[in-house]
Amino acid sequence: MPDELHTVEVLPSQKKVTAHRGSLLLDAAAKAGMVIDTPCGGQGRCGRCLVKVTKGQAIDHESPRLTPQQRADGWVLSCTARVGGDVSFVIPAQRERELIVVETATTRTAVPVQCDWPFYPTVRQFYAELPPPSLDSNAADLDRLQAYVAEKQGLAKLAVSPTLLPRLAATLREANWRVTLTVILEGGDQQARLIDISPGHKTGPLYAAAVDIGTTNVVIELVDLRQGKALGRVSSLNKQRSCGEDVISRIIYSERGNGLETLHRLVLETINGLLQEMAAQYKFDTRDIHQVTVAGNTTMIHLFWGLPATYLRKEPYTPTATFFPEVPASQLGININPNAPVYCLPAVAAYVGGDITAGVLSSCLFKSNKLTLFLDMGTNGEIVLGNSEWMTTCACSAGPAFEGGGVRDGMRAIDGAIEEIRINSKTLEPTLEVIGGVPPQGICGSGMITGLAEMLITGVVSRSGRMNLSLPDTYPGRARIRPGEHGAEYVLAWASESGTGNDIVLTEVDIDNLIRTKAAIYAGIAVMARNLGIPLDSIEEVLIGGAFGKHINIEAAIQIGLLPDLPWDKYRFLGNTSVWGAYNVLFSKYARQQVEESARKMTYFELIADASFMDELTAAAFLPHTNADLFPSVKEMLK
Amino acid sequence: MPDELHTVEVLPSQKKVTAHRGSLLLDAAAKAGMVIDTPCGGQGRCGRCLVKVTKGQAIDHESPRLTPQQRADGWVLSCTARVGGDVSFVIPAQRERELIVVETATTRTAVPVQCDWPFYPTVRQFYAELPPPSLDSNAADLDRLQAYVAEKQGLAKLAVSPTLLPRLAATLREANWRVTLTVILEGGDQQARLIDISPGHKTGPLYAAAVDIGTTNVVIELVDLRQGKALGRVSSLNKQRSCGEDVISRIIYSERGNGLETLHRLVLETINGLLQEMAAQYKFDTRDIHQVTVAGNTTMIHLFWGLPATYLRKEPYTPTATFFPEVPASQLGININPNAPVYCLPAVAAYVGGDITAGVLSSCLFKSNKLTLFLDMGTNGEIVLGNSEWMTTCACSAGPAFEGGGVRDGMRAIDGAIEEIRINSKTLEPTLEVIGGVPPQGICGSGMITGLAEMLITGVVSRSGRMNLSLPDTYPGRARIRPGEHGAEYVLAWASESGTGNDIVLTEVDIDNLIRTKAAIYAGIAVMARNLGIPLDSIEEVLIGGAFGKHINIEAAIQIGLLPDLPWDKYRFLGNTSVWGAYNVLFSKYARQQVEESARKMTYFELIADASFMDELTAAAFLPHTNADLFPSVKEMLK
Repeated sequence: MPDELHTVEVLPSQKKVTAHRGSLLLDAAAKAGMVIDTPCGGQGRCGRCLVKVTKGQAIDHESPRLTPQQRADGWVLSCTARVGGDVSFVIPAQRERELIVVETATTRTAVPVQCDWPFYPTVRQFYAELPPPSLDSNAADLDRLQAYVAEKQGLAKLAVSPTLLPRLAATLREANWRVTLTVILEGGDQQARLIDISPGHKTGPLYAAAVDIGTTNVVIELVDLRQGKALGRVSSLNKQRSCGEDVISRIIYSERGNGLETLHRLVLETINGLLQEMAAQYKFDTRDIHQVTVAGNTTMIHLFWGLPATYLRKEPYTPTATFFPEVPASQLGININPNAPVYCLPAVAAYVGGDITAGVLSSCLFKSNKLTLFLDMGTNGEIVLGNSEWMTTCACSAGPAFEGGGVRDGMRAIDGAIEEIRINSKTLEPTLEVIGGVPPQGICGSGMITGLAEMLITGVVSRSGRMNLSLPDTYPGRARIRPGEHGAEYVLAWASESGTGNDIVLTEVDIDNLIRTKAAIYAGIAVMARNLGIPLDSIEEVLIGGAFGKHINIEAAIQIGLLPDLPWDKYRFLGNTSVWGAYNVLFSKYARQQVEESARKMTYFELIADASFMDELTAAAFLPHTNADLFPSVKEMLK
Repeated sequence: MPDELHTVEVLPSQKKVTAHRGSLLLDAAAKAGMVIDTPCGGQGRCGRCLVKVTKGQAIDHESPRLTPQQRADGWVLSCTARVGGDVSFVIPAQRERELIVVETATTRTAVPVQCDWPFYPTVRQFYAELPPPSLDSNAADLDRLQAYVAEKQGLAKLAVSPTLLPRLAATLREANWRVTLTVILEGGDQQARLIDISPGHKTGPLYAAAVDIGTTNVVIELVDLRQGKALGRVSSLNKQRSCGEDVISRIIYSERGNGLETLHRLVLETINGLLQEMAAQYKFDTRDIHQVTVAGNTTMIHLFWGLPATYLRKEPYTPTATFFPEVPASQLGININPNAPVYCLPAVAAYVGGDITAGVLSSCLFKSNKLTLFLDMGTNGEIVLGNSEWMTTCACSAGPAFEGGGVRDGMRAIDGAIEEIRINSKTLEPTLEVIGGVPPQGICGSGMITGLAEMLITGVVSRSGRMNLSLPDTYPGRARIRPGEHGAEYVLAWASESGTGNDIVLTEVDIDNLIRTKAAIYAGIAVMARNLGIPLDSIEEVLIGGAFGKHINIEAAIQIGLLPDLPWDKYRFLGNTSVWGAYNVLFSKYARQQVEESARKMTYFELIADASFMDELTAAAFLPHTNADLFPSVKEMLK
């Protein structure tokens, strides 16, 4: 049987070769003249060698690299799948393979989460043809309006934004009593406040904006509240970045001179700039934006409001507020309709902000029957553990390593950033994925995670994060491991290949920073779970939100001990859950009620006040962990 | 019997004389060498000759000049009371007699009206000692505050004025968590909004201001909301007067260029100036004023808010609003605590404003079982007819005559104004009361009313308002009646006696203006009552409010046909009911609920839309009226 020969057809070239039963598809392809690249050295780790069986049989085993659906569709890894009979398979173009792999291994469960909120915006717009006044009926203009909306719209009580009153009489008369009214429902379906009145019958979108103020990026989703749909998204760097990369350095900046004022101004400039960009792109006036919801971490929201942030970083870490009043845009300095209500999603604590409650909302964690771990990993790691019955949350200061800070060649995930690294275990040579397909300029967070994982798996670094300088020269990639200014280092790209003209490296100091960062997050999860008496392996679902969550490689993250060693199918990547939460709140008043209820329900757990946290942090400062038994899949691979 | 002689003792001189039974006390006094002045010529009209019987008997008949109590106390008019037996009486000093007469005839029922509102201010202040935060309890500052007031003050829901948030954290910490909180109750006793927070334990008055914006005068009553008492009153001219005397000329001014802006600014300057004056006088900071209520006519409130007033004077006379939102002082430009709520008492229509609903409130008309007529007479006459069951209101444009406009020597009721005129029917010589006891400079409204009434009664003018130039020269005062530039005129004071160096006169043109003015008010009352099917003599009580109501002489007002010919004891003078209404609203939330309920309940009657109004106006343009039967008491006197 083992010697049985079978015909193997390699598509799309249609070349046929014979191959022994049990030989690797990879080798059969090579026989047909098609060399399939294996960045990991043919260990079934990287998934870059996948092919699709279109006819006949291949012998393969389950791989975390492939989803059940992909396997059913015929996808196999050619470095592990073997000839089991006559077989035809397609080798997709390399770019296509990349896409499939990225789709599969890093975002394979990135289905957008839909909680199916009933469309119920609080801001409404409607056309009104008022009966003009006469001597027989000369009630005040506002009374006339109120009587009309009571009769026609069922709004028994209509308050009015005071700033509308000076123009009310003239607008009604100039428009010959035909006007478009914009109201916001307040405290019940029969009570509203008039926030805009304009002549004639306005149709077209009723614009609103869901804003995510990230420490690094500000993202705005434009929404049409008339149709109940998203129109488009814009984003840009938060201009506050000139005052510090992370929240702590921003807070420190805010404490100096008129630093707070500057930060307040800069975030408004960022938001106003994006809104103008959006208005230009979609051809409307920014004054036509009638509602804004804002999600952001507690520091960002404090700075957005112009509130002192200093107490957020000083023990005992108290925000000024977690629930913020809804105020007119003009009061906060947002250049849209001055009466447009601006609502900030509620926070829980100094380091569990509205971005996290937004995540709990948009991930539907609040109604999950499964024991769920929600993670938002950035400079701060925010952690929520719970289900529809209860939720506990904590935050750990992870440091900016994953965002490029404290890493020699670190950078954000933009063009030129190495976002995935594979190291061939036979050669120790790296294969790099660079965003934008340009020469590499640095490494972003996901690149660091995969790089560190690959270095660990291939033995380039030890479990304590030291470079293995004693590897034999027989590995062609050995030359990349060398002493450097910041300890030993591994050269990812030589100067000749890089976009900077310098070698791009990961140093031992970089690795120390990465280990501290991943240890903080893991320790946070572990301590909180232990305090709740919950074994990590009883967690049924892990939801990863935040901008970072789109790019992370789950396998590598487990390998370095950043994430608990749970089956991959428990992980779901949700992308920017913060802006999505703000969007939900615009879309439906029920979502807003829910996010407030969730924020009140979330029990805040102060990690720093827990005596075991420092011990856990120390234990986690190892690859993957001092106690390797906590990471059985990694332990197995390291053998 | 008629020849019976009795002993008459005249006090305080103790001189005794004998007098025949039936002789006048006046004559008996003269016999004793005491000449009692009789400005009206001894007709029992002016009441200036009153004396007090201390022993024995005088025969007298009822006089509208004296209250039943005064009669019971022994007061009689010496020009009508006769000797009925041995009698002793006191002649009070002339000043004292004046005071009694003024007290009796013009303000005899001016008892302050007390509706006995339960003291229930919506703005409250209390001291709080918050538990400082710790790692075990690091809720947000606002949450900490909210939890505190929920527990200690029963305020389940505490909102916060957004502008307080930026200083909240620092204030709490600088004050070592001991602060004084000022809140306003909102929508129920368990809901409030924080409007101020200050370090330490504040005691002393919790200042608030009740403002009456009159077209002419602005009056502010300072209130201590902690003790629930009035602290004092200031008033000044409304600075808008430089832009026109009456509301119509102000509205016209507002229509030109930036006239509206100017008027808005001027009323704020007036109010802010008074508040500063008050603060200096009572030694506090204007920022310590935490609530303001404002009453004023609809035009004044529109200008106070900066709303266009032009539609108030153009058919069909529609205000922008009658109910105004309560807004922070900073939004309206009042220089007090920026978050202090400012509430304007609701109006009913373009010419029935918050001053009138304030009047309905402070006069207790809204709960009266009697059919009541409420009058506020100024440039506009506002009329309310009703009781606790129903209220109907209208307004008539009376013109500024009573406020000194359109009358050659007219002036406001300040020092130098003739406020009461008596003409001796035997001599036609006038006796003048001048405010401040200085030489006369002009005539104010109440002077005009008494002057016109006296001229009618003494035959100086005819019922059509023409001067009687054919009176014989036997009257010493005949010389005062002469032709002049503006028709015939009567000289009230010769140049030599006057404070201006010129004769002070009332001309036929002045009298025409006065007749038009009084006719408008009477016609308004008559048409509205007729439309409601109510005979005027079924009115049980007449309440006169407004600043003017303090000085009016009710007898004279009936004689000229300004007021219906009802028994004097039906009239009550209430003084400035507008500021008093604003005060009540500060004092008690129940008063505020009531004024809103009353404003909603008042049916507005548009006089101009009533076909019979012009006819009634013409009929009333006679002294007292074309149909003298409507004024039987005057008809009797004119015989």
